[in-house]
This record gives sequence, structure tokens and C-alpha cells, in this order.
Amino acid sequence: MNTLQLLLEQYKKGWSLEREFYTSQEVFEQEMTYIWKQHWLFAGFSCEIPESGDYLTYMVLDQSVIIIRDDDGQIYAHHNSCRHRGSAICLEERGHEDKLKCPYHSWVYDKNGSLRSARLMPDDLDKSQLGLHPVHVAMIEGAIFISLADKPPDFSQEIAALSPYLRPYQLDNAKVAYRDRYELEANWKLIGENFRECYHCGPVHIEYCSVVVGANLVEDREAVVAESKVLWQQQGLAVDTIENTGDASHYATRYPLRPGMESYTLDGKPAALPMGQYKQYDNGVVGLINYPNFWMDGVSDYIWCMRITPIDALRAVVDLTWLVDGKAVEGVDYDIERLTEFWKITGEQDWHLCENNQKGIRSVRYEPGPMAPSEEDVVNFHTWYLNRMRKGVMKNQ
Amino acid sequence: MNTLQLLLEQYKKGWSLEREFYTSQEVFEQEMTYIWKQHWLFAGFSCEIPESGDYLTYMVLDQSVIIIRDDDGQIYAHHNSCRHRGSAICLEERGHEDKLKCPYHSWVYDKNGSLRSARLMPDDLDKSQLGLHPVHVAMIEGAIFISLADKPPDFSQEIAALSPYLRPYQLDNAKVAYRDRYELEANWKLIGENFRECYHCGPVHIEYCSVVVGANLVEDREAVVAESKVLWQQQGLAVDTIENTGDASHYATRYPLRPGMESYTLDGKPAALPMGQYKQYDNGVVGLINYPNFWMDGVSDYIWCMRITPIDALRAVVDLTWLVDGKAVEGVDYDIERLTEFWKITGEQDWHLCENNQKGIRSVRYEPGPMAPSEEDVVNFHTWYLNRMRKGVMKNQ
Amino acid sequence: MNTLQLLLEQYKKGWSLEREFYTSQEVFEQEMTYIWKQHWLFAGFSCEIPESGDYLTYMVLDQSVIIIRDDDGQIYAHHNSCRHRGSAICLEERGHEDKLKCPYHSWVYDKNGSLRSARLMPDDLDKSQLGLHPVHVAMIEGAIFISLADKPPDFSQEIAALSPYLRPYQLDNAKVAYRDRYELEANWKLIGENFRECYHCGPVHIEYCSVVVGANLVEDREAVVAESKVLWQQQGLAVDTIENTGDASHYATRYPLRPGMESYTLDGKPAALPMGQYKQYDNGVVGLINYPNFWMDGVSDYIWCMRITPIDALRAVVDLTWLVDGKAVEGVDYDIERLTEFWKITGEQDWHLCENNQKGIRSVRYEPGPMAPSEEDVVNFHTWYLNRMRKGVMKNQ
Repeated sequence: MNTLQLLLEQYKKGWSLEREFYTSQEVFEQEMTYIWKQHWLFAGFSCEIPESGDYLTYMVLDQSVIIIRDDDGQIYAHHNSCRHRGSAICLEERGHEDKLKCPYHSWVYDKNGSLRSARLMPDDLDKSQLGLHPVHVAMIEGAIFISLADKPPDFSQEIAALSPYLRPYQLDNAKVAYRDRYELEANWKLIGENFRECYHCGPVHIEYCSVVVGANLVEDREAVVAESKVLWQQQGLAVDTIENTGDASHYATRYPLRPGMESYTLDGKPAALPMGQYKQYDNGVVGLINYPNFWMDGVSDYIWCMRITPIDALRAVVDLTWLVDGKAVEGVDYDIERLTEFWKITGEQDWHLCENNQKGIRSVRYEPGPMAPSEEDVVNFHTWYLNRMRKGVMKNQ
Repeated sequence: MNTLQLLLEQYKKGWSLEREFYTSQEVFEQEMTYIWKQHWLFAGFSCEIPESGDYLTYMVLDQSVIIIRDDDGQIYAHHNSCRHRGSAICLEERGHEDKLKCPYHSWVYDKNGSLRSARLMPDDLDKSQLGLHPVHVAMIEGAIFISLADKPPDFSQEIAALSPYLRPYQLDNAKVAYRDRYELEANWKLIGENFRECYHCGPVHIEYCSVVVGANLVEDREAVVAESKVLWQQQGLAVDTIENTGDASHYATRYPLRPGMESYTLDGKPAALPMGQYKQYDNGVVGLINYPNFWMDGVSDYIWCMRITPIDALRAVVDLTWLVDGKAVEGVDYDIERLTEFWKITGEQDWHLCENNQKGIRSVRYEPGPMAPSEEDVVNFHTWYLNRMRKGVMKNQ
Repeated sequence: MNTLQLLLEQYKKGWSLEREFYTSQEVFEQEMTYIWKQHWLFAGFSCEIPESGDYLTYMVLDQSVIIIRDDDGQIYAHHNSCRHRGSAICLEERGHEDKLKCPYHSWVYDKNGSLRSARLMPDDLDKSQLGLHPVHVAMIEGAIFISLADKPPDFSQEIAALSPYLRPYQLDNAKVAYRDRYELEANWKLIGENFRECYHCGPVHIEYCSVVVGANLVEDREAVVAESKVLWQQQGLAVDTIENTGDASHYATRYPLRPGMESYTLDGKPAALPMGQYKQYDNGVVGLINYPNFWMDGVSDYIWCMRITPIDALRAVVDLTWLVDGKAVEGVDYDIERLTEFWKITGEQDWHLCENNQKGIRSVRYEPGPMAPSEEDVVNFHTWYLNRMRKGVMKNQ
């Protein structure tokens, strides 16, 4: 029985995880195999690459993936490695190329990955065997997911669950208003855990609690929820919370701001134009998750999205994107500082909490502690995670 | 027989240690287990946390320890890790907290480590089982030592030996005049070795030799020593050198400056008020060591203290503290630059020597060389070190 | 069968190497043993240490070597580690010392490595057993090669092959006009491969191709070569290409610039005085290689030399040296910017290619690809490399 199996057996439901899950590079490498190189990962939004030839690259650990739109509007993903001697082909995080030309010896690939030409090679070169290695792509209403697996897991439940919540935003017509990036000295799961409970919100997130009713776990919000649901349904919006259960990796919900509040801003007033199908501001927040790396909070006028990418057992990167309606004009319909300050403040509070958490877990005397009742979704996250790891271990035996 | 055992068997007394003792991460990790997480470590001085709620944190490798004074004046040490989900509790190196409140979910601990309250947890939570994990504390006349061991080694000999040398300084009433920190590209033992011999002093430490009689190993200092001892004894000061023998980790001595010199300064003139019970300046230097991390040189008007903390096999941090009498006023009774320049110069000479030593030991052709007669205390240090490692290996078999 | 053996068996001649050869630290450490600590390495030029006591140090991985000229003009190499307690002796990359005095305890060695004096040591110290550990030295017409091996491989073929090409430069009388250093995020072999093919030159090296006829692989240069050879031979210059075959590690050739061009410069006009025996400018380029770390391109008025030194599996340093005739005066006979811009531009193009190559090879889906006919010298480089590794594995079985 290896280290991971022992750790998995020691798990007590309702208690935090053993130390090694957050500190061991050996466990981390198994996570990479069983989860990150296996599962569906959020990569970006279709509106980031609107034109044929627009591309973005996503670096997951040491794997660089090109995500590019072809002439028919379809989005392809390829391993960023030339089939000649392996050079990276797209060198920027975002860019535009009419064709994928390797910068080393100028082999040229079509946007769909086929090798089009290889100069000064013998005539009998079988180009059909030398296309870029493909990466699987799944779209959910303008959100791009990829999988590095040979045979990715079924994703139909996730698509079915998240689509009704994303559709009204009409993401194909949205635009990126702002991006930010933080490198955190924290295991990726600590960031995930942080965003699955509001037990810490009351004492820490003063700004967040001033806008979101019940976030402090003290106020009763049942009446507001019930009343809001009626209004949301009248607008044809999805309202049923889809819990994360079984092997599915998603979670979706709509929850209310305080009555009268219309956006995730410090004063609750809107920050931009209503997005997509939204014709008016409302007090609803769409909260979506897809493990292991997609977390999104949307109000009627903007979306804040967090993409988590691990570096090693002790570090991770969070990439933050603020989306607004494609018609919104900066300086006229929205102001960057006002649009971003709410999540900049709240996010930075969280990054500190996650890094402190990592520091303390390094103690040799750290041991799993009891979770609060309000942390049940962290327990659900652990269940999802541990099942993936158990399944991976079993398959590899 | 593992690598360490082989290395231990190869040791030839009177010769320097095998290369791997200074370069191998595998050996380093065994040192952490057998010495650093086992032995008594100097953490700081009581006068650094004079008031109830004052704390300091000491990071030994990846272990953060809180050292805090409670309302009765007692000093406690705790692992810096909340019993809920493990967050670090004290985030600064030095600070003041009336109670130890976890920054994540606001669990509150008393200064003695007891869990006082855990908000929004079930009523049947057994708080008595959820206090901060304690770290052992031993005080020697105002110097704070801790041990991360479950059952620390006996420390009574060390306390008995160092107390008479420290007592006259009345450290509870002292104050920190200055702190400095260097990160050295050198194994921690090379720093220890450097401070156990004066074979290098003549050619390197011009300033030191100009103040300390006999440091160049050429001058005869017997008459000065004998004469000084009489004067020191008249003042009731400890004078007998306590050699480092057997399993004990300490060394203590009093040795003379050149006749007429009164302090460890470039001109031998005092730099501050006489400390504690000292009523006048004298030419004595108190030299104290406690392996593995405490080294102190005190004259009648100030103390210079070095705390060594390893980072890995190739790097260590030295934390330097200058103490003066608590009544001394900066700018009136002492000047920071004058107080610190002697050890700043001498210390930096040593840091370079240690880093050069590390560089050369990396040679694959490095092999143990013969020690000079004047390096016998380095041999004693090796003996202490090797015995600790042998004992650790035996226990783990 | 270990990882390396499996990789060696998987090799298909004419295809690029398996991923692990460029990414695995395990493979890298075997390269260090079988190649870098075994083979002859270029260290520098005799003209860099013209006077007795002039020295340079070369750091190969963690091994520092002193290369010093003695009073008789002979060049010695020593492990940079004192035989007392191992301190590094020469602390600078280049310098001058009348004797090799250890900075720690002042043991003194002669330039030939003999221990001359050890202060304050017992009289019966056997100094004859405590000289600096020697490193083998081989000279090729002013180029200094060293070997860290106990018994270095035969070097006579290499000396015989490279000498006729180096001799006319009279390197003992040359001087360093400029040095540069780059740290590349690329395995050392990728840099070697890059400098063994011109398949990439056409699309990438615009400046290089504008000066070197046929470098684009499109132009026919046979007539120019034939015509040039006659002229070179008339001047008594070596003209026969010496291919890298069998176990030998060298390659030597003379190839032409475009007709009328006289130097490796952006306009083909000279940049300095003709060197050594060269009495006039010609259109010849001397290209020399000695695996694993020596690459040199010389025209009649200057030499550009690249020394490759690995850091780990993923990184290497390139040290670049521009040599001119010793009589040439800066500002009069040559201008640094003009002298260096051609290889600064061309080199930086190559560093980017190498780093991109490394990035793409990290893909888990990278697999060896087919080499172009014009990459046959990369295949020869692979053959040399793989034979060294095979031999190393066999010896260690």
C-alpha cells in the first residue's frame, strides 16, 4: 500500500484532509495524473478569440495547449509542440496567426492541426501522420473546456447543468474588460476549499457581506431567497441549485444580493450594461463551479471568473477575468476601477487566507480538524477529490 | 547500512568531515530529525516580549513556533497551526495579541494555548481536545530555548553551566538595540565550525585580533588571563571555562581583551552603559555556546548573539541581536553604528569564509584534511554532532 | 534495465531524441558522469592568462577548476579546494595570484599545486601528500582543454585535427576583445543541435544568410567553394573538412562567405586587423567543434567562440568570447559594437529557437520526429552522444 492509499484510508469524513495532501510532491504528481491530465479544465472564453486565427495558449503545469479558432468558427485545441523536433509553435499567451508556422524550421500546420507543408523534406514524407497532437475541446455556451486525457470523462451532465445559467449571458458576444493574475503560495485545493464555504466570510469579508445577504451566516435570508426566485423565474432565469453529487464535477446556483442591490459592487449599484439577454439589473448572483479549476460569479452586468492552475504541491496561479457585454464601452458604460474593486478586495482577502492556511499546515503537528456545519460544501469538494484519487489508484494497481 | 552510517564509520578523529555532511540533502534531513527537531534551540530573549501578549515567532525549517508571554508573565510556546483547518495564527515575526485569534475562521485560543471559543460550531465540540499543540520551553536567565521533541533531552547541565555567566546581565531588564540577518550559502555546521576556532583569526580578523589578546595564536596571554581572573573573581563573576564534553551541548568561558581595553569595539572603549549587575567596565568577554544554534559573546556593556537556522544542506540564516542594558538610551548612552561595527566587520569576514568553504567542499575531489592543533574545539563540535547522529541512527534501526 | 537503457534502445536513427533526454534530471546526472566529468572540455584561451600567476576559474556544474600559468609559462589546472578543510582558494572568475593562498587559514600552494606551507601545523605534516588535486590539461594551439576524469580519453585525434585550423591564428598572441554570457532555458544538447544544422537558417538568420553563401540551403555554392579552396591552399591554409566520425569528438571545416565578403559582419567588410599569420582578409570561415562544449567560428580578422556549460536538465549557460589579434587597438583597429553585432544578432536568434524548442518538448505528447536531410550533422551529434551514454551504461553494469 503506497503513501497515497494510506492517506486515503485515514480520511475521516467531516474532518479536514491529512497534511500530505497539501504538502507532498508525490501526492501532487498523482493529482496531476488522476485529475489535471484527465479531467475537463476551463481554458478561457470563446469571446477571447472571436476571429479566425485568434488563439490563446494555456499552460497546465508543463503542458502548453494552443486553443485556436478556424475559418469556420470552430475552436480547436492542440499540443503546442511541432512534430519535427518538438519546438513550441505559438509563443505568446494570446495572439493571431493565419497559419500555425513553427518558428524553428517553418513547418506549417492548418488551424485544425493538419500538417500543410514541411519545407526541404523528402517527397515521400507522410504528412497525414504528422499533424499536431489534438487536445479534446468541449464548449459550454461560450466557455471553453479542454481535456488532456486520451479518453476524457463524460461531460454531458456538466454541460446540461451549467448551460441554463450561462446561456442568458450570451458569452459569444461578451468581451474581456480586465484580467489579473496572482501566484499564491498555497496548494490549489486550499483555494478551492476557500471558495466553497462562507464560514470565514463574516469576520473577513466585510465588503462582501455588506452586499450579499446571509453571507455572514447570521442573517436569515429565506424570505429574500423565496421572493427573489419568483422574480428570477418571471424573467425565465434558472433558479434551482444543482448540488455537486456523485462523480459529477459541477455546482450551479443563483443566490440573492441584499434587497435593492443590483450588482457585486461596493455600493450595490450597477457597474456596466446588463449583459446578453438581461434587459434589466436584478439582485441575482450566478455561482458556477466546475472542479478542479473553474469558479465563476456573475451578476446581471458582469462576470468574474477564476481559473486555478497548480504549479506544484505548494503553489498555484489564479487567473481572473472580468467579462462585460460586448456592446459596453469602457469609460462610457463602465469604469475599470469600479468594475473590478469589489472582487479585487474580496479576492485579495482570500489569497491571504489561503497562504496563511498553507503556512500553518506545514506544522508537523498539524492534524485534521473538525469542519463546521457551514463547511459542508468543502466536505463535498473533498468527496469529489478523494473519489477521483481513489479511482486513479485503483486503475493503476 | 545506509549512506549516513557509512559516512559515520569513515570519520577519522582530527580530520574534517566527509563531503556529504555538507552537501547531501539526505544527510540534512536526518540532521533535522535527530538534532533540530529533537534538541533544545535558542529562540530569543525574554526582554523581546516584555508584556503579556507580546509574541515572537521562530521558523525552524518549515516549523513555525509562537512564543508568547501570558498574563502571569510565563512564556509559552505553541505550534503555529489552528486546530480547525490548520491556518497559521500569528502572521508576523514579532507582535502583540491579547488573544490568539485564527485569521481564517476566528477560533480563539488563550495565550496558554487552550481553545477558548469556536464560533458557529456544534455545542458538543470538545474544546479540551483542541488546544494549540504545545512546544517545550526552557529558560536560562532570560534566554528562551524551545524543543520540538515529544520528549526533549535533559537540559539541566546546560542550565547549570550557562546560568552563572548570564545572570549578571539581568537579561529580563535588557533591551534589543539592533538586529541583523544574513542568508548564507553555507551548511549550518560550517558556520558552527568557524566559530569554534581562531586558527583563521590572525590572517583574517585584523580588527578582532587588535582587541582580543592571543586571538592570533602567536601572543602569549597566560599572564593576562591569570591577572584578569583575579579581578573578575573579586567582582563575583564566573571564570571557569566549562568545556563541551560528553553529550552536553554547551560551552562557556570568560576570556580577556587586551589590557586596558573595555569593550568589543574598534578602539576598545565602551559602547554603552554597563549592563545589569556590572557596575564598571572590565576587560572580560563571556563566550557561550549551546549546540546547535546558540552563540553569544558578551562584554560588560553589550551582548552580541548569533542564532543559526538551517534552510537546507547548502544554506543557513544567521540572526544577529545586539543587547544593551534596558536603561541605556539610544543617542545618549550608545550609538548604533559604534555599537555594531565591530561585529558587523568581524561577522561579514566570517560569512565570506563560510561561503568559500562551502564552495570548495563541492569539489568531487574534496576529502577530509588534517585539523590544526588550534582547531581542537572544532573536533569537539564534530564529536558532539556525530554522537547525536549515531544515536539517531541507532534509535531508528 | 534502467530508464536510460530503455531510452537508448528506443532511439531510431534519423529521428529526434526521446523527450527524457531533454527533460529528465536522472538522465542529466548520467550525462554528467559519462560525458561532462569524463570528457575533454574547453575552458578558455592561453591568451586570457598571459603572465605567470594569471588564472581563470571554470565552474562545470558544481566543480570549480583553477587554470593558472606558472613561472615557466606552463598551464596547470587544479581542483579549487584546499586540502585542509576544503575552502575554495581562487574566488574570482579571473585574476592574478603570485601564490595560491587559501583565504581561510592561509595554507599556501605553488602554482603547480604543491603545498608550500601550512602555518601552525605540526612539524611532521607530510606536505607531499597534500597538494591540490590536479585536473588534466591539454593544449591545442592556444586553446585550453581540461578533463575531470581520473583517466581522460585519448585526445590525439582531436589535437591533430584542430591544430592546422587554429595554428594560423597564433592564439598565444591574440587578445579578448569582448565577452558575453547568456543563461538559456534549454537543455545543453538543444544548443548543440542548433549549431549543427542550417535547416533553420533560411527563415530565421536573415543577416547570416546575407553573408554566408548557401546557408539558406537553396543557393548552389559548389563553384564558390571550389574556387575559394584554391586561394586558401595558396595561402597554406587547411581546407579539408574533417567529419565527426567514430568516437572522436571533433569537427573542422573551412567554408566560404559570399564572394567579395571578407568578414562575418553585417556588410561583409573587415572588423579588425588580420589575425596572426593572416596577412590579408579572405572569404574563409573556420568552423570548429569539439563535443560537448566547444564551438568556434573564425574569419581572418576575428574569432567568435561559444563555450556551453549545463546547469541542469533544463538550463545551460553559453559563454561567448570574441578574439582579435593582440596588436589590434580598440577604437583604432576595431570597434566593439561593429565587431560583435553580427554574432550578437545571430546568437540571440538561436537562443530563442533553443528555448522555444525546450518549451515544446515538455509536451507529454512530444515524440521523436523525422529529421530533414540537411540535419545529418545533428544525427552525427546524436550518434556521438548516444555512444558515450551507451559506453557509460555498459561500464557501470
